[in-house]
Amino acid sequence: MKIIDKMNASIKEGKPFFSFEFFPPRTEEGVENLFDRQDRMASYGPTFCDITWGAGGSTADLTLDIAAKMQNMVCVETMMHLTCTNMPEEKLRDALDKLKGYGIQNVLALRGDPPKGQESFTVVEGGFACALDLVKYIRAHYGDTFGICVAGYPEAHPDVIVDDPERMKENYWKDVHYLKEKIDAGADLVITQLFYDVERYFQFVKDCRSVGITAPIIPGVMPIMTYGGFKRMTGFCKTSVPPRIAADLEAIKDNEEAVKAYGIELGTKTCRALLDAGVPGLHLYTLNLEASALAILENLGLVNKAQRPRPLPWRKAPSHKRLAEEVRPIHWSNRPKAYLTRTADWDSFPAGRWGNARSPAYGTLSDYQFMRRHSGSEKRREKARAAWGASLNSVADVVNVFVKYTSGEINVLPWSEMDSLQHETGKIQERLVALNRSDLLTINSQPAVNGAPSSDPHVGWGAGNGYVYQKAYVEFFCSPASFRALEARLACVPSITYMAVNAAGQSATNVPAGAVNAVTWGVFPAREVIQPTVVDPQSFLVWKDEAFALWTEEWGSLYAPGSRSRAVIEDIAGSWYLVSVVDNDYVRGDLFSVLEAPAAAAAPSANGNGASANGSHAIAEPERLAA
Amino acid sequence: MKIIDKMNASIKEGKPFFSFEFFPPRTEEGVENLFDRQDRMASYGPTFCDITWGAGGSTADLTLDIAAKMQNMVCVETMMHLTCTNMPEEKLRDALDKLKGYGIQNVLALRGDPPKGQESFTVVEGGFACALDLVKYIRAHYGDTFGICVAGYPEAHPDVIVDDPERMKENYWKDVHYLKEKIDAGADLVITQLFYDVERYFQFVKDCRSVGITAPIIPGVMPIMTYGGFKRMTGFCKTSVPPRIAADLEAIKDNEEAVKAYGIELGTKTCRALLDAGVPGLHLYTLNLEASALAILENLGLVNKAQRPRPLPWRKAPSHKRLAEEVRPIHWSNRPKAYLTRTADWDSFPAGRWGNARSPAYGTLSDYQFMRRHSGSEKRREKARAAWGASLNSVADVVNVFVKYTSGEINVLPWSEMDSLQHETGKIQERLVALNRSDLLTINSQPAVNGAPSSDPHVGWGAGNGYVYQKAYVEFFCSPASFRALEARLACVPSITYMAVNAAGQSATNVPAGAVNAVTWGVFPAREVIQPTVVDPQSFLVWKDEAFALWTEEWGSLYAPGSRSRAVIEDIAGSWYLVSVVDNDYVRGDLFSVLEAPAAAAAPSANGNGASANGSHAIAEPERLAA
Repeated sequence: MKIIDKMNASIKEGKPFFSFEFFPPRTEEGVENLFDRQDRMASYGPTFCDITWGAGGSTADLTLDIAAKMQNMVCVETMMHLTCTNMPEEKLRDALDKLKGYGIQNVLALRGDPPKGQESFTVVEGGFACALDLVKYIRAHYGDTFGICVAGYPEAHPDVIVDDPERMKENYWKDVHYLKEKIDAGADLVITQLFYDVERYFQFVKDCRSVGITAPIIPGVMPIMTYGGFKRMTGFCKTSVPPRIAADLEAIKDNEEAVKAYGIELGTKTCRALLDAGVPGLHLYTLNLEASALAILENLGLVNKAQRPRPLPWRKAPSHKRLAEEVRPIHWSNRPKAYLTRTADWDSFPAGRWGNARSPAYGTLSDYQFMRRHSGSEKRREKARAAWGASLNSVADVVNVFVKYTSGEINVLPWSEMDSLQHETGKIQERLVALNRSDLLTINSQPAVNGAPSSDPHVGWGAGNGYVYQKAYVEFFCSPASFRALEARLACVPSITYMAVNAAGQSATNVPAGAVNAVTWGVFPAREVIQPTVVDPQSFLVWKDEAFALWTEEWGSLYAPGSRSRAVIEDIAGSWYLVSVVDNDYVRGDLFSVLEAPAAAAAPSANGNGASANGSHAIAEPERLAA
Repeated sequence: MKIIDKMNASIKEGKPFFSFEFFPPRTEEGVENLFDRQDRMASYGPTFCDITWGAGGSTADLTLDIAAKMQNMVCVETMMHLTCTNMPEEKLRDALDKLKGYGIQNVLALRGDPPKGQESFTVVEGGFACALDLVKYIRAHYGDTFGICVAGYPEAHPDVIVDDPERMKENYWKDVHYLKEKIDAGADLVITQLFYDVERYFQFVKDCRSVGITAPIIPGVMPIMTYGGFKRMTGFCKTSVPPRIAADLEAIKDNEEAVKAYGIELGTKTCRALLDAGVPGLHLYTLNLEASALAILENLGLVNKAQRPRPLPWRKAPSHKRLAEEVRPIHWSNRPKAYLTRTADWDSFPAGRWGNARSPAYGTLSDYQFMRRHSGSEKRREKARAAWGASLNSVADVVNVFVKYTSGEINVLPWSEMDSLQHETGKIQERLVALNRSDLLTINSQPAVNGAPSSDPHVGWGAGNGYVYQKAYVEFFCSPASFRALEARLACVPSITYMAVNAAGQSATNVPAGAVNAVTWGVFPAREVIQPTVVDPQSFLVWKDEAFALWTEEWGSLYAPGSRSRAVIEDIAGSWYLVSVVDNDYVRGDLFSVLEAPAAAAAPSANGNGASANGSHAIAEPERLAA
């Protein structure tokens, strides 16, 4: 969706919007960290996020790649910066074609800074002289495909900032008129350069309006985070700093914490002044850090860490192709990026019910990105080993890792793309710890919810004045012996449906073939019932290959071939069952008590006596899952 | 679906099935009454119902027409009898083609009795000699299209019943072998002629098995209802009557009630013996009467009047075309046949959600059948006038009719195809009476239900161990003045959504354009949420034409043109609003209190002072429903 359309919707609603700007990190690890941060920041509901284009196009491919992932994996509406600097036409065309292919609909058109080492901007052969050319080019060759944003300079472009007041005034107005030209050429939105003098911004908007610019002019706000950074940035951008701010900072420049706190306080004050004056929204230059930006937005009441917007239980991709998507299998709920990747080639996505539009042709995962999240680089392997053990002696050591993960002592596990248990797990954390202690190694779960308000901070989602529901769900690995004992218990509880399968595909289930089970749904005013999460037997069989592969790819691969540690992992992966259990009675059921029953008996294995739980009995007369 | 498949499913489930046989009544009124009776009897969940083919094909067209309506309007799996008597090939072909077109998949192939006045059976030119020929013909020309049932004669066919025991034995075995030939030719099921000697039936089954007949042989049971009828039938069919039964009846033959009670007692005993011996189901010859057949089934525990099977809140049509249908607008819930007719030409039907597969191209209704249910014949007009008043003086008289209807004093209203308020209305009957007293003339409603067990005798439906929900709904006519007052009150309750429209199409609503509201849904084990009833703004606009037309077509037309009575009706139809109100808060909402609020003020009109409620104010700034 075009940002201008989203903004206009916010303006109509009378709700100030906000957005975050990021830049491409220099290292691979930095990029990974950026995605994690964007993941978290996206959960607060920014109208969009943008990613800058390295000076001189130096990071073009990286920027394109990051933009694609922001749009399609982080699932936030994304705007990519595009500069003319050192860009011949075919390179621009290539970048725009790619954006279109990625489903990105927003571009910030810039002239750009000269590449590092070059003093001033030069026009390359076949290239463009200025942002105006770029805007014209995009409109001429891509029509209405992209929303185009352009930069506004409340103090004029740094290149034309001079000391002579007369010439300065002339340059400033040239800049304002130039902005008008960019808008007339087809840009639909202005974001300003950072400023610390709020009055300057107001004057700039007034001046822009005076020459006929009617497009929204969104203030760009950069929270002061460090003294050094502030000095560098204001120097580079030739930003005027009100004497009061300069003096305040000078007094605390050696106290990092004080500078940061001052930055938050100043940012809050600035933004409040802007909002009070009626700006429709705020653009935050984050410098790839989240704390200050979020603190300011929280002070302003624009975000609430305890109550983030959740239109659906999972984050919807903003791409046109997936707009109709409303249902996903629960199995990937801790690995949404893997799911997005495996379904990227689908032509249509299930809306309404999973069973109506099932396209179970899941694609495969490229190893590196998703199967080696925690083991893809030596640095990450170290981190993983620290969490999961430098070596493993027995199943009990593995059990212990799961207990630590569910207890919150460690925050990574192969079956989660996120670095922590999900928010709502808190409600059932103790029960999960108990299950893991009794050798049921949980990788996915949700508590039963019987009609909580849709505004509930823990389990709520969707529009206001609705009610949300969940069936209790637990997915875990367990040994064949454990499963046999468990199956007998599950059979006594008519409200429970389960599916179990091992790596070889042997399975047992009491679910009718093809029966799709909605385990999360919501009822809202003047709507049909929304049921965004299902347990789907067919998808479960696809997921189980991924789930078993993660044992060896992510975890086993940390240890030397032939080592005891690796054997422990491989033995589990080769013989244990992956079990998916739903308690269909979300009103009176008590799934955890059913699963926990034998905790006392099985507990010793967690203390070192796990051998018996690691047998490989066949399941007697299994029903076929794939029937 | 073929009956043999439905039976096999019942056998697999270990649940005895039952079915009802009817014959074509002689009068038009009789036919209408038959449909009403079938409607009620179908609600108990018979596996199928069948309709006989008049002797000598005398009622061929009528039988075809009744069969079509049974299958597609009464919505019960239907089997039509087809006899060879007096039937040239083209007539048979025509009948079978029509059946196919109606979506009927089951035929009972018979030779048939000679037409009235003819003593014995004659083969017509180009016709068939016997049921065997008919079975062969159907299989040869229609392949697997139809399930074919044939008749079995536990005492041999009446035509071959003779006194000489030797010849009788020979004839009997000829008959058994002949039945084997019918099965070999492609029949998949046997239903027996009526009998009163249960041992005879068991011997017959044994004899059939001995010659290699493996098809199910369903006992045909005819409850004794009157002494005369019993004598006629057993004489005509040459049915042997055990001396004990003959003696019992002889003793009570002049006491109608006693005969009926005896018939139920005997029928129950007979059926219990059959079921105890392991018959998979019972076929009941009803003679178009319901009491005895239902009493027997109730005694056997096969039906429970208080808890009829409700797979969905509305009865699903058994035709292949509508099998996927899962959602309907609430507006036609008291006029399901009108809905079935108006949607008969749809290529696909909404499953899952209404909004996903909407095909709002509703067909028109043929006047006679649906718009003149209560006014189509002088007899019915009399009945309607008796219920609604021989003349009307004012709106108050009309209000009084609605009060009487909701109170249960009268049982017909133009907006219902059924002759009584629906079952679950009981829960809100008093509230409805109060609304009608205050000039809100209700034609459709349901109470809020917050997670009742799916087995609830009043509001339950669907599979076991589920929970069902409803949003409170009321649909009514009211004067423009009433609506204006009401709208102000509705606006104060954020959980309420409403739509109002008058005959001219002026409308007011607070529902977002195109917002479909699921007002009935159910959550079941291992299923996605089922939401069978919705409020759909587009369908409401179609329904309103029907709803307003019913005022004049059904009610106004009872009175002479130019009469005061007709003017009262026409004035309401021309100026009042049809209002549809949903309380979306099914947990805490109290729709009736909101609607009832001004009852005290408006009450006088129900006592004769209705003029003020009958003004025709325009609604201020109406939002357009069709936007």
